[in-house]
Amino acid sequence: MKKSLVYFQSGGPTTVINCSMYGVIAEALKHNDEIDGLYGSLHGVEGLINDNLVDLRKEDLEDLELLKQTPGAALLSSRKKLPSIDDPLFKEIIKTIQKHNIGYVLVNGGNDSMDTCHRLHEFFVDKKMDVKVIGVPKTIDNDLVLTDHSLGYPSAARHVINFLKMVVIDAKAYTRGKVIIVEIMGRNAGWLTASVDLLPEDSRPDLIYLPEMGFDEERFLKKVKEIYEKKGYCVLACSEGIDVQHKNCGVLDSFGHASLEGVSITLAELIKERLGYGTRAMDLSLAQRADPLLASEIDKEEAIACGKKAVLAALSNESGVMVALRRLPSDAYKSEIFLVPVKEVANREKAFPKEWIVSEERLSDEFREYLRPLVSSSPLVECENGIFLSASLRLEKVV
Amino acid sequence: MKKSLVYFQSGGPTTVINCSMYGVIAEALKHNDEIDGLYGSLHGVEGLINDNLVDLRKEDLEDLELLKQTPGAALLSSRKKLPSIDDPLFKEIIKTIQKHNIGYVLVNGGNDSMDTCHRLHEFFVDKKMDVKVIGVPKTIDNDLVLTDHSLGYPSAARHVINFLKMVVIDAKAYTRGKVIIVEIMGRNAGWLTASVDLLPEDSRPDLIYLPEMGFDEERFLKKVKEIYEKKGYCVLACSEGIDVQHKNCGVLDSFGHASLEGVSITLAELIKERLGYGTRAMDLSLAQRADPLLASEIDKEEAIACGKKAVLAALSNESGVMVALRRLPSDAYKSEIFLVPVKEVANREKAFPKEWIVSEERLSDEFREYLRPLVSSSPLVECENGIFLSASLRLEKVV
Repeated sequence: MKKSLVYFQSGGPTTVINCSMYGVIAEALKHNDEIDGLYGSLHGVEGLINDNLVDLRKEDLEDLELLKQTPGAALLSSRKKLPSIDDPLFKEIIKTIQKHNIGYVLVNGGNDSMDTCHRLHEFFVDKKMDVKVIGVPKTIDNDLVLTDHSLGYPSAARHVINFLKMVVIDAKAYTRGKVIIVEIMGRNAGWLTASVDLLPEDSRPDLIYLPEMGFDEERFLKKVKEIYEKKGYCVLACSEGIDVQHKNCGVLDSFGHASLEGVSITLAELIKERLGYGTRAMDLSLAQRADPLLASEIDKEEAIACGKKAVLAALSNESGVMVALRRLPSDAYKSEIFLVPVKEVANREKAFPKEWIVSEERLSDEFREYLRPLVSSSPLVECENGIFLSASLRLEKVV
Repeated sequence: MKKSLVYFQSGGPTTVINCSMYGVIAEALKHNDEIDGLYGSLHGVEGLINDNLVDLRKEDLEDLELLKQTPGAALLSSRKKLPSIDDPLFKEIIKTIQKHNIGYVLVNGGNDSMDTCHRLHEFFVDKKMDVKVIGVPKTIDNDLVLTDHSLGYPSAARHVINFLKMVVIDAKAYTRGKVIIVEIMGRNAGWLTASVDLLPEDSRPDLIYLPEMGFDEERFLKKVKEIYEKKGYCVLACSEGIDVQHKNCGVLDSFGHASLEGVSITLAELIKERLGYGTRAMDLSLAQRADPLLASEIDKEEAIACGKKAVLAALSNESGVMVALRRLPSDAYKSEIFLVPVKEVANREKAFPKEWIVSEERLSDEFREYLRPLVSSSPLVECENGIFLSASLRLEKVV
């Protein structure tokens, strides 16, 4: 008997998460004989709890094509954490599953969302329900284990690299310039900040700070002073997760993580106070994960391919697994998709390798070799009046 | 007798100021029979004071081509304000002028730099020296009078428009989202912030605040509350120059302007304190004036054409004038270049027209008609490893 497939997005959006959605829909439409309803769950798992599903077969093909250059989470996202599987909340999920004859659940998200993915799988196994659960990786932080890289990271890296080049070139203009501190996302992992190391020397930030380096205030101030006195300006690339005192980490999200925004302001104040230089705190903020104009072509292609693979895995009765990427040995970049147990990915973080850290000025050749092929592309996106086009989905509710 | 031509850049860089430099060099090279030395003055007028000139004929043609996609000020900039023309400092300028047989000075900058341009002209007239001074307009603020728009504004607007679209799309992801306050440059003029009005409704910020609107705290909070309670998020586009209390305007630059950074943080605190919503303060910061990937083709073409026109004006013995743009009546956008007295531009500001302000939600059709053709282009820039290429000039010092 045909079962319905439901796909949802969870956690922070990336530039290419909707490419994975495109891949899921494109593949699923080829299997209408095997798939009953083709649904999206709005606001991640919340849509399963509240019976808030949309019919993905009702969307215009033109809009589905535009998903490939539409940032944000087209199905809306959620940071909801599932309780243990004996919680009554799961009864609501069962109702939705049974009402819509759902046999396949595809979860597109990062470490936290893979926890959701794992709990759903555990629950259906425990209840002996025939529902397959597949994870599709997504995070600009690149901190998912068991995969060469995370979907969304290459595009975010390409954005960060190009922006730091803009900032460094702009910063050179004045005889007595500023110390510019650029705050970059990545939570506890330095992958995204590290990407600026790919820049040629004349447009590379002077100093790079990753959480994995640790942070020594006096050494930091000494380095900044040396560079500023020599060049008349200084540009710093700093991970939001570096361990600076007085960091504003009051707020906790629903997964218990500290809110990391504000490290650039803290460092700017520290420099003003101790060295007396003019400073400018910059936070690259949301655009890092939402810039279709600097998306990586490889990232887009892999995101689509992983969405397709997730559908095929579900239809071949896999469950409790996440789609992952493996880099193949060859001169030109090649990767293959394989499956890993989602419980081994959930709630774990892949830190930036210590052995790839040379100093605050430079990372290793190995890292640059790892990153270069992932960002080396110049995609074009469709624009109208000079504004990038994006999809406006109908999101027609299933009753 | 052949005289030398010196060109310099002054004030904050724009995405296309180096396009004007390209135009100046391209035109000047056609007139080697009339022009002796072809020089750049480093750090604006400071290069004339300190005899710090570079030989522009020594640059590689390939790098000159790349100037068209190189942000920042390729000749380095300055915020130095010239004193009254009886100041001894002008003696230093005379030395440099005479040492290098300079007959033409081209000043590329904004309102403040046009003051420099005017004082130099006044001084040479007063001293009966045969030195022609021509201004080339440049500012992302679009606040120069007597010109349809300022070079650099269309590209900055295109960047701001596309970034706000990214932010609005990203902001929709959560059921209970944040109030996102995006701070946009423009000093006392709202032109750049106003550009977001060109976005289609589904990706337009909910509220737009220009300095020309005035700012009523209670009305502001009421509007934010209405929108947030209805949509679960709210995106605000705010000029750095809006008059919010407690704005950090401690610092003054050498032209006596207050430092305007920080209005987004002030508004975020106000909203947190009074409405208790989660907030995210974003400052688009330097990238607004330095993003070659979102440069406007029309802006680039006009910047080059104005550089060329400035050379021709100097050679035909014009002085104390600035190159300006006039829009021609026609269906497709057309403009022509003409000359205006620089003293009428210096230190004046063109505010955003009151009659184009409809409300905090919407500006007028007339404004959108004015802006649309200026940003409607999708330029391609050359990239290597996914990073935009930029010029690395020799800047070979003239002795």
